[in-house]
Amino acid sequence: MKIIIAQQNYHIGNIAGNTAKIIDAIRSAKAEKADLVIFSELSLCGYPPKDLLYFDEFIEKCNTAIHSIQNETENIAVLIGAPQQNIDKQGKKLFNAAYFLENRSIKHIIQKTCIPTYDVFDEDRYFEPAKTWNIIEYKGKKIAVTICEDIWNINDTLLYPISPMDILSTQHPEMMINLSASPFDYLHDEHRLSIVKANALQYNIPIFYCNTVGSQTDLVFDGASIVVDHKGNLISRLKSFKEDAQCFNIDKNGKIEYASESIHTLEQNIIPQTFDPTFNISQIYEALILGIKDYFDKMGFNKAIIGNSGGIDSAVTIALATAALGKENVLTVLMPSAYSSSHSVTDAVELCKILQIEYHVIPIEKINDAMLHELKPVFKEMPFNVAEENIQSRIRGNILMAIANKLNYILLNTSNKSELATGYGTLYGDMAGGISVLGDCYKLQVYELAKFINKEKNVIPENIISKEPSAELRPNQKDSDSLPDYFILDKILYLFIEQTYSPDAIKKIGFDSTLVDKILRMVNSNEYKRNQFCPIIRISPKSFGSGRRLPIVAKHLS
Amino acid sequence: MKIIIAQQNYHIGNIAGNTAKIIDAIRSAKAEKADLVIFSELSLCGYPPKDLLYFDEFIEKCNTAIHSIQNETENIAVLIGAPQQNIDKQGKKLFNAAYFLENRSIKHIIQKTCIPTYDVFDEDRYFEPAKTWNIIEYKGKKIAVTICEDIWNINDTLLYPISPMDILSTQHPEMMINLSASPFDYLHDEHRLSIVKANALQYNIPIFYCNTVGSQTDLVFDGASIVVDHKGNLISRLKSFKEDAQCFNIDKNGKIEYASESIHTLEQNIIPQTFDPTFNISQIYEALILGIKDYFDKMGFNKAIIGNSGGIDSAVTIALATAALGKENVLTVLMPSAYSSSHSVTDAVELCKILQIEYHVIPIEKINDAMLHELKPVFKEMPFNVAEENIQSRIRGNILMAIANKLNYILLNTSNKSELATGYGTLYGDMAGGISVLGDCYKLQVYELAKFINKEKNVIPENIISKEPSAELRPNQKDSDSLPDYFILDKILYLFIEQTYSPDAIKKIGFDSTLVDKILRMVNSNEYKRNQFCPIIRISPKSFGSGRRLPIVAKHLS
Repeated sequence: MKIIIAQQNYHIGNIAGNTAKIIDAIRSAKAEKADLVIFSELSLCGYPPKDLLYFDEFIEKCNTAIHSIQNETENIAVLIGAPQQNIDKQGKKLFNAAYFLENRSIKHIIQKTCIPTYDVFDEDRYFEPAKTWNIIEYKGKKIAVTICEDIWNINDTLLYPISPMDILSTQHPEMMINLSASPFDYLHDEHRLSIVKANALQYNIPIFYCNTVGSQTDLVFDGASIVVDHKGNLISRLKSFKEDAQCFNIDKNGKIEYASESIHTLEQNIIPQTFDPTFNISQIYEALILGIKDYFDKMGFNKAIIGNSGGIDSAVTIALATAALGKENVLTVLMPSAYSSSHSVTDAVELCKILQIEYHVIPIEKINDAMLHELKPVFKEMPFNVAEENIQSRIRGNILMAIANKLNYILLNTSNKSELATGYGTLYGDMAGGISVLGDCYKLQVYELAKFINKEKNVIPENIISKEPSAELRPNQKDSDSLPDYFILDKILYLFIEQTYSPDAIKKIGFDSTLVDKILRMVNSNEYKRNQFCPIIRISPKSFGSGRRLPIVAKHLS
Repeated sequence: MKIIIAQQNYHIGNIAGNTAKIIDAIRSAKAEKADLVIFSELSLCGYPPKDLLYFDEFIEKCNTAIHSIQNETENIAVLIGAPQQNIDKQGKKLFNAAYFLENRSIKHIIQKTCIPTYDVFDEDRYFEPAKTWNIIEYKGKKIAVTICEDIWNINDTLLYPISPMDILSTQHPEMMINLSASPFDYLHDEHRLSIVKANALQYNIPIFYCNTVGSQTDLVFDGASIVVDHKGNLISRLKSFKEDAQCFNIDKNGKIEYASESIHTLEQNIIPQTFDPTFNISQIYEALILGIKDYFDKMGFNKAIIGNSGGIDSAVTIALATAALGKENVLTVLMPSAYSSSHSVTDAVELCKILQIEYHVIPIEKINDAMLHELKPVFKEMPFNVAEENIQSRIRGNILMAIANKLNYILLNTSNKSELATGYGTLYGDMAGGISVLGDCYKLQVYELAKFINKEKNVIPENIISKEPSAELRPNQKDSDSLPDYFILDKILYLFIEQTYSPDAIKKIGFDSTLVDKILRMVNSNEYKRNQFCPIIRISPKSFGSGRRLPIVAKHLS
């Protein structure tokens, strides 16, 4: 049997576009005389469709699209993911389903049994878990078709009372196919391979695992679909962060042959137990590039504007945007003030010259003076404080948005995760933007990204990397005036955010008690700022945004 | 048996504060020689605690608090709501539980069986449904203890496979107690009473329904706890939007006596089938007042700043804030530009004089000139468009935030739901603010609120109500330049947002096809703006925010 894995990038809600893409792949598969072509979870509508699933019209469009795909299945079978109406009238109105189409008809519908509702996943909001689950047969082969989370139930945390895993061993399938929409994080490659391997070993069958690829605002799907044999050996791995299709033969004895000359091998890195900013940094880089690219593609924009402070965060954001969108599509704006150091302008200009990107210099001093002049009757003789700092930051936000509005650009945000965690940023000022590129990268990871970007040739000027970080909103300001060293800060933040350690547990590791309390108070009391922040390209297992939902008016934990 | 319903306002995460409040009520109940005092769902930690439930430390604090409450239960029984650890290691780690405490010990723990995951509810993210459910006995009475959603399963939509309702009829309880955290919307009073009545009639038992009260950022809980007899007759209703406690006697025959002189009767309004901006407008008013008040109380602020344009949205917001916080705690800022009409200033000043609140006048013309001057090298001779409009709006946002930062105020946002739906607002400009007061009220509801506020005495100047709405960002601008009449717009929006009608279904009702397409395109393409908007005080069954989750990069439905 000849099987093709089609790893595609879908546009949520663009059912017509996704259908056309799926039909293209079916026609190519027919030309290759394949028996079966596999697509990813909810491929028809894109993942996650969220509350679009509440619109009857949306479900009807999916049903119509399934019919048109059905008509393409003469002499070939197709597995696509789509929502299915639950006609039972008990439970949620939909199933998360895999449609097995063959010979112009729907031969089987397999429903997802394990419905993830944690972190960024909200599937219980829409989907009823399958009540029954059975293997299917095709061309004499017994096939277990599972959907994403269904195979993750194999590990110790048994979140779900029923799963295909309970039934599998009694039905003796000869192979498994999994349709996934499994988002990237820097640990996920390792987790995913080990889960697929564990399943292969447990049931002694080969597994064809088809993941989706592409970024959907905050969630990046990395593809990296895999095939393992019944002993869990990696047979092949599709491209990461790119569309791909690969063809496999299974002979009568279940042996998998893979046609292409280069069998992908995968280095499995050991997952670090503590925060390691270097871990899988090349994957993070690729994820951010795809995150930027797809945000623009799917929003129908192509040009980015970025505030260029001469600091490391804007430099890395600019370098990433240039790699993602092309140098002709990136505009940066330098907005020096009375408090800007001379190097902040020269460093910023040097970066633009190296990248060959356009820049404008728009000084904010006169605008700032006009603001302070009009505010004088209210501010009177009160001393300079954070209010005056924020004014400058918001003037810059206004300038960037004005140019973006005028020239049809999208503003890319440059805040990093350490800043967002501690509230070290100005709402409507440097927190403005359509999407946050570095909002899930701690400051130390931003430095690692800079080093990675500079690996082959010098892109980010050395001075930007080596100078002390500063917001430059008052004379001689340094980040270290308000924040501890990032080597300490990032570790504490990681323990609290990624690991949900209690303040006491963090202190027991050896961090200063007063410092821990101070930092966690900052994290907890700035929920209101993060609540209004733009979507963040997610690269970690615990990003701010839909994966971390905390009450705003909560009395602090610590 | 003497039963007290304690309807209290909790602070999420403030377990020490909530515990003290609960213990106070227990001591008062003892003084009244009550047998049982009932608190609301998750009373110990506040509802909804969201991802605080993921912190082990948080659960430990709850457990410690239960022990301290236990020690208060000599000669009295107490029902409180709290999370309970699931020691099974299968399924989610917690139950949403009711603890029945008596004689210094935990006598029973009843777990919620119906776990709501729709609209603003995310309980499947945290809670495992109960596997078993049984009635309890206390002083010879068989009592069915249920938690919120458990009793809503009685209606046609059987969302949950198992519920206490299946078991109830076989166990012959003599009464039911329901612990709720049921948020307000303008239809909810009617829905709630009919559900409680239906349960009483179905099982032929009286019901003591204890709801929480208080606002938690976006969600307003209105209290309005109710007691019905076994025939579904309303015996009493506790206060709406306020803390309250009431004491009841049940005699041997199950007859309920209510001590207080005034038995509350409730007028049940007929729920309108189409959009009716007048419906339950007095309740909406109360909800917004509580929403403002509790946001400030629980955030630890007491002063509000509001942009005062002389328009209806800011006028209503200012009147509400003044009623909620007191006239000494409200500051408004008039920020006229070259495009401001003369009446916008006089109307705004008149409002402040009537309300006796402080105001500042800060003209934005010079700041705007400075901005345009610096942007000239980029904007060149391009014609005036939305970019220049947004600049003005963002200067105003900057001024308001600057004063808020300087004087420790919170900025209240004045956007309405019709604007938010269509994207007729400026990100970081008039969309700025800590919380949105009117973001769940369509423009026609804002007018009804103005009329309601003016019912007893003239608060909002008549000219503000009668003049044509305008953003005044360019010469002679009117809302009607970009938007249809609000009598048409609001009805279309209501059908699409509240009723999830398809474009075709809306057109079939008789609305112009081109107009419907235009409006729905505006709604769909402005998801990115709403995604960065502040929390909205929710008064409808479908508010923007956590109850409506749509993908940003989605290809439009229409």
